[in-house]
Parts: sequence; structure tokens; C-alpha cells
Amino acid sequence: MNFQLTIVKAGGKIIEEPDLLNAVLKDFSRIAGYKILVHGGGRMATELAGKLGVESKMADGRRITDRETLKIVTMVYAGWVNKNIVARLQAESVDAVGLTGADMNLITSMKRPVKDIDYGFVGDVKSVNSKVLSDMLSSGFVPVLAPLTHDGNGNLLNTNADSIAAETAAALAYDFNVRLIFCSDKNGVLMDENDEKSVIPTLDGELYQQYRAKGIIKDGMIPKLDGAFRAGAAGVREIVITSAAGLSAGGGTYIR
Amino acid sequence: MNFQLTIVKAGGKIIEEPDLLNAVLKDFSRIAGYKILVHGGGRMATELAGKLGVESKMADGRRITDRETLKIVTMVYAGWVNKNIVARLQAESVDAVGLTGADMNLITSMKRPVKDIDYGFVGDVKSVNSKVLSDMLSSGFVPVLAPLTHDGNGNLLNTNADSIAAETAAALAYDFNVRLIFCSDKNGVLMDENDEKSVIPTLDGELYQQYRAKGIIKDGMIPKLDGAFRAGAAGVREIVITSAAGLSAGGGTYIR
Repeated sequence: MNFQLTIVKAGGKIIEEPDLLNAVLKDFSRIAGYKILVHGGGRMATELAGKLGVESKMADGRRITDRETLKIVTMVYAGWVNKNIVARLQAESVDAVGLTGADMNLITSMKRPVKDIDYGFVGDVKSVNSKVLSDMLSSGFVPVLAPLTHDGNGNLLNTNADSIAAETAAALAYDFNVRLIFCSDKNGVLMDENDEKSVIPTLDGELYQQYRAKGIIKDGMIPKLDGAFRAGAAGVREIVITSAAGLSAGGGTYIR
Repeated sequence: MNFQLTIVKAGGKIIEEPDLLNAVLKDFSRIAGYKILVHGGGRMATELAGKLGVESKMADGRRITDRETLKIVTMVYAGWVNKNIVARLQAESVDAVGLTGADMNLITSMKRPVKDIDYGFVGDVKSVNSKVLSDMLSSGFVPVLAPLTHDGNGNLLNTNADSIAAETAAALAYDFNVRLIFCSDKNGVLMDENDEKSVIPTLDGELYQQYRAKGIIKDGMIPKLDGAFRAGAAGVREIVITSAAGLSAGGGTYIR
């Protein structure tokens, strides 16, 4: 029987609000078995970009990353956000190690080809080094992954944190019983984005395509759900989209 | 017989000038045996602080670190500088992993007590986790250490990169034949700071104290040499202070 591995992706306000982040990290520290935390940090990068006079542009929920923006997201995601999380988890007796995809050659990616939009230094995940992650987990470490990868030619690439969580879950599904939990500002996938009570309890591929066609599901939820369904197809046993509170209390949208 | 371990500390212009950094990383990648890179990044933090309107204050070659400055140095050192070095080393087939002292609980420190000067969020190294570093080296990884540590209570602390290099060398001297190389802007410890040809070829503890009393050795060279002598006392076999070029060409000041 395979061991249990929980992968939590934390994004949105969780990263921005210290009290909320602390609460999530305490809940995370109480999860039994092997675990990995993947974090975003979007609006903090937007804030720093603003202070430095660098314009933030988004397309389909992904940040367009020019050279200056790459520097900003690397500083914010891999620097401030990642290392603070690591230091706080260490204080909760979790032996955390903060990593990007470049570290230990964990996650390689390909710069997204230019079609309608040039996303700049944005990478789509090509491979996840499941061997190295397994070894780290077995040695008692808890990887904390920042949303950056590398192309193997010396370049860092900005990579969607939801995609990193999903691809990592998929890559480890062969060796572990993987549970993948996306924690963000919403209670789950909502029928009405302004009504937190309109959580869709379960979502399968067919329903997803219908809701997407109708515009009920849009923006940043699209890469998140695309990744979730890929992870499900790869053998990830449980996938849920929930809020910060949902990490301990349960609830949210279950992906079938 | 113990294995050879080379610890290189790279600071000053090496970190700031991409071409010089690339040259040093190429030389570093060619070093045989186990190796660790420790980097600084001082003036890049000063530059970002300036853009954000945060004043940079130094005392005895160490940065006074208020809360805003801690955020800046964490972003610059652990984010931009560290992860770029890692990505470039990966492109040179060096399986680098960028870490702070908080990661894997590698280096704990104590916030420096307030005496004449309140250094703020600055930590003096308390312990180096030589077991974890040894295991990483044995597994084929090359640690790249950013000059940040943690206090174990959830706080990151800004820590002098020379001290991290020296304390890491000292901690690993029992398990490895350690060679410690400080690479910076000067050709070595100079008799006349304006004459790059005035390199002091060897320095022992007595001579150091004499030159320090006379003001020939001052500022940032003091923590560097204090650390170097502590490392020597702890059994580090070779300690040299040299330039970027010295990493491949040799030369510089040897510590006895």
C-alpha cells in the first residue's frame, strides 16, 4: 500500500494576510503523513511592481512576465513569501525546505510559445522530478514550492502555482496516495461568483466544459481546473477546491 | 581519509555584474569534489531599498536591518540572487539547490543583542546543521546558501555571508577536508586599499591584530577575517581571500 501524501496549494489572500497565513500554516502543520505546500503570491508582486513603476498585465488569469516582472516575481515568490513560510513552518516543527523548480532540477518548463499573446518569461511545466521529491519526503522534509521553474538553459520562468500543484500531484500519484487541496479566497467553484454559498459540490469533466462554455467558470479558475482534471486522470485520488477554512473544516468542490 | 570540500563565498561586484558572475559560476562548476557556494548581494539590496525609499544604514560592514530592510534583503538575496545562481548552475550541469538557514533548519542564529548599536533583524550564527549538509553533498547536490538564517521562532535574520561561509566551513571540518575561498572585489587583504598589488600573501592571528590596531584592516574585512580565523581554529585546512579571477588563477591572502 502506498503512503498518503497531501499537497496543499495556498493562494490569494492567504498569502497576503499574515493572520490568515499563520492559521493556514498551523492547519498545514497538523496534517499527518507526507505533505507538500505550493504557494502563489500574485497581488504582492503586483503591489511591488506598482511601487517600482512596473506595469502588471494579466491574460486568462496568468501574469504577462517581462524581464523586470520576472525579477519582481522571483523576489516576491521565491524570496519573501517562500522564506517566510519556511521560517514559520520551522517554528511549528515542520522541517520545511523552500524550493523553486530550478532547485535540484525539480521542475523544468518550456517558455510558452507566442500565439495571440506573448506571455514573456512564463513557463509551462515539462517535467517534475518525482524521484528527488520522494527522497526528500522520505527523509522527513516538507517541500514548500514557489511558482517558478527553469528551462535548463539558465532561465527562470514564472509558472502558475495551480499548475505546479497539479503537475506535482500527477507526478507523485504513482508512488503515493495523493490528495490535492487547492485553498484560495472562494469556498469552492461557485455557480455565482458573488455568492459564497453557491459552491458546486462536485464537478466532472463534462459539467466543467458546460460551465466553462457558459462563462460560469472563467479567468484563473480555468488553469486551476484544467490542472485538477489532468491530476485526476493521472491517478490523484482526491482533489478539492476550497477556502482557507476548508483545509481543516472540509467542504468545497470535489473533482471527479 | 576525508573527502575534499570546497566552500566558495562570492560577494561584491561578482554578484552585481552578470558577466563576472557567469565567469565565476563557470569556474565554480569546474571545481572537483564536493562544493558549496555562499553568496552576498549587498549593493543590489541597497539599490532596491533606494528605489523603494528605504534608507540603507551600515555599521562595521554590517547592514542595520529594520523590518522593511529585512523584506528587501530576503527578496534580493533569497529570491533574485539565489535563484538566478541556481538556474545558471543547473545550466552548467551542477545540481544546485538554493537555501537559506531556515530551509531544513540549516543555520540557526540569535538576534544580535543591542549594545551601542541596534542592528535590528540581524542574526549571529548559533548552529550549522552539518548532518543535513553532508547528506545533501553525498546525494550529489550543491548547496547555494543565501545570507539569511532563522531564530527557530518563525523569524528570518539577515546574516553576514562571510560569517555563514566561515561557520559552515568550521562545522564541516570534522567530516571533510575543507578549503574555504572568499572571492570578492579585491585581490586579497591589502596593505594599501587603493593598491591592488599590495596583497598580504599570508596572515596569521598576530599580524591580523597588529594590522587591525593600525587601521590597515577595517570595515567589512573584520568580520571576514574573524570568521576565517575561527574556521582555521576549527580545522579548516586552507583559507584564502582572493578576487573573482583568483578562483581559477590562485593568488590572494592565505590565512595561517
